[in-house]
Amino acid sequence: MSDFKEQALRYHAEPKPGKISIEISKPAETVTDLALAYSPGVAEPVREIANDIDNVYKYTGKGNLVAVITNGTAILGLGNLGPMASKPVMEGKALLFKRFANIDSIDIEVTHRTTEEFINTVANIADTFGGINLEDIKAPECFEIEKELIKRCNIPVFHDDQHGTAIVTAAGMLNALQIQGKNIKDAIIVCLGAGAAAIACMELLVKCGAQREHIYMLDTKGVIHTRRNDLNQYKLLFANNTDKRTLEDAMTGADVFVGVSGPDILPAETLKLMAANPVVFACSNPDPEIKPELAHAARNDIIMATGRSDYPNQVNNVLCFPFIFRGALDVRAKVINDEMKIAAVNAIRAIAQEPVPQEVLTAAKVDALSFGKTYIIPKPMDPRLLPRVAKAVAEAAVASGVARIPLPENYY
Amino acid sequence: MSDFKEQALRYHAEPKPGKISIEISKPAETVTDLALAYSPGVAEPVREIANDIDNVYKYTGKGNLVAVITNGTAILGLGNLGPMASKPVMEGKALLFKRFANIDSIDIEVTHRTTEEFINTVANIADTFGGINLEDIKAPECFEIEKELIKRCNIPVFHDDQHGTAIVTAAGMLNALQIQGKNIKDAIIVCLGAGAAAIACMELLVKCGAQREHIYMLDTKGVIHTRRNDLNQYKLLFANNTDKRTLEDAMTGADVFVGVSGPDILPAETLKLMAANPVVFACSNPDPEIKPELAHAARNDIIMATGRSDYPNQVNNVLCFPFIFRGALDVRAKVINDEMKIAAVNAIRAIAQEPVPQEVLTAAKVDALSFGKTYIIPKPMDPRLLPRVAKAVAEAAVASGVARIPLPENYY
Repeated sequence: MSDFKEQALRYHAEPKPGKISIEISKPAETVTDLALAYSPGVAEPVREIANDIDNVYKYTGKGNLVAVITNGTAILGLGNLGPMASKPVMEGKALLFKRFANIDSIDIEVTHRTTEEFINTVANIADTFGGINLEDIKAPECFEIEKELIKRCNIPVFHDDQHGTAIVTAAGMLNALQIQGKNIKDAIIVCLGAGAAAIACMELLVKCGAQREHIYMLDTKGVIHTRRNDLNQYKLLFANNTDKRTLEDAMTGADVFVGVSGPDILPAETLKLMAANPVVFACSNPDPEIKPELAHAARNDIIMATGRSDYPNQVNNVLCFPFIFRGALDVRAKVINDEMKIAAVNAIRAIAQEPVPQEVLTAAKVDALSFGKTYIIPKPMDPRLLPRVAKAVAEAAVASGVARIPLPENYY
Repeated sequence: MSDFKEQALRYHAEPKPGKISIEISKPAETVTDLALAYSPGVAEPVREIANDIDNVYKYTGKGNLVAVITNGTAILGLGNLGPMASKPVMEGKALLFKRFANIDSIDIEVTHRTTEEFINTVANIADTFGGINLEDIKAPECFEIEKELIKRCNIPVFHDDQHGTAIVTAAGMLNALQIQGKNIKDAIIVCLGAGAAAIACMELLVKCGAQREHIYMLDTKGVIHTRRNDLNQYKLLFANNTDKRTLEDAMTGADVFVGVSGPDILPAETLKLMAANPVVFACSNPDPEIKPELAHAARNDIIMATGRSDYPNQVNNVLCFPFIFRGALDVRAKVINDEMKIAAVNAIRAIAQEPVPQEVLTAAKVDALSFGKTYIIPKPMDPRLLPRVAKAVAEAAVASGVARIPLPENYY
């Protein structure tokens, strides 16, 4: 067994299984404490909530509680291994919510026969929580699931594999294009992959100014174009009226490559077909579509990002999801809408453009970081992310009319 | 607003809403920590679980996680106020699980249209947890719900309002009968109330030796007898072939009264109709069927228990549910069966019969406690409950063949 594997298994198993626990946050030692926490004292908040359901936010943990919910059909890059195998990932996500944004988060693994049953199950337990983070659910079901749950639930529902990825990608992409002297409105974009993350990334780039007709999305059969008759409704949104058919066709003259597909499937030769000063996001995890060494060897004018922490410019969802939920919860947003997502994109972008605090350098074990080709996205440990992203998102929620309460006083 | 009411509301609201939180239980500070907790390290336990589903107990918190699940249809004595109003109670129960047995517990409030939908919802999320504590679900639906979930789930499902109450009642009752020189096999028993707790109490007393034909159960229409044609299948189990019709009829010559009905509905005159040396459990909460002062004034030969902490002999579910789950989880019992329930009854009984540790006296603010008319049930803060009840339950699970693993080494 490799050292890292052994270490990872030991981390999860010892001294106790798992990595999150549920703790008591109020005094609970004496008989008097317990009389307040449970019978008879608990009857008082019960009555207050029965009188006005909004009091549930005043007297219970709902307002700071996010469920991480999955059916285990698309676990990491490992595929459909079922709900139980996904539990370490979901608990890990809960850990990240706490670590980065002090959000109480619990995982829920759902077993079901049909998509409808999954939706009903989640909708039926949704009131327990202040928000729902959908996770590791395969496409195309994830689109219907999220859409339906947003409709039926009274709290934010956010499929992080789609929108978290899309927000961080968009932030990094806009910065990279700026450095390369390109404008998103004119950029020719190739998207290799047509799953949940791919479609969400492209939709958000369109909302950030990309032209739909400049986007060439490819699935396993090649370019998605208007003359194909094998497209589901989600791919159909990106069907391009084009004669391009292969990856090489699409890459010729392209400004941007976004890979959300598989390891090592972008040849260096193909990279050479792109326009001058291209932007290459090879986000397949753990192994990118092309190794950064190979890409840089093929041409020296690219800006490159991957999903890995051991290369510059890591596209990491943790830059977004804890903080977008923090902002949404703090104004009790009914949904996480496009305005909030774009606010998160801009806040993340702006942080990368500013001078980096010493503690970030220390954590990243580097002497200096400055906005440029190898630093287009903030580092995950950057303490500015919480206040800046949460505030931007909360303000956008208020401005777009989906907040139920105003911004807390002196909010960040 | 009364002081206590204000104090209870403040307890729940300040400094933060609620009384439980979710915390990180493993190192999660550095980039290296997070690489173990989440990507890429988390892939290792995922693979191990995909290979052998039992590994979920080794690498995740499932084995120590109990969901407290309700639909809010029978909240405390307050009735059907809906899932959101029940949340403080469910969080309180979760707090008690942690406080008394170090079990991680989270509340789930379910919204649903039909009983079937509730069952499906809970069954679909059940794998997330190591056990399910059903709570505050009204009768008669609670019987079908529990039965069906026990059948469909691979983990213990326990409706505490039924069985927790029944176990503590049976423990106290058997002790009280012993002190009064009576035998459960001969005892004439009146049960005022025919809801979930009433039926579960009587079923468990039957399993402990009571004769079904000696039991007179009353609902709002009087004695439940074989000539009534308005009985659901659960009440039918206690239809007595008798001419007794009223509470007075039933109480005449009875040895035992168990009240799980409403406040102040047992007149002192009726109490006088009972046989010599009777046992009176007036468990309606917060106000018993008859106040202990009135009962003792009416006759001086009774042993009395209530649901209140400010009188002797409190029937309190917290004596049971944390520890029965502790024992069940520790041997990964598939269910909580009758053997385990009776083991809990006997363990709780035995503790009350033994000398009381000083710390229990200190917590209870009394100089002495010894087994007798005013001390038939242990106090909630008794530290002997955890090791003794958990061990008895775990051993019973192993002996009755429902444990998946043997008793841990040096278990209590």
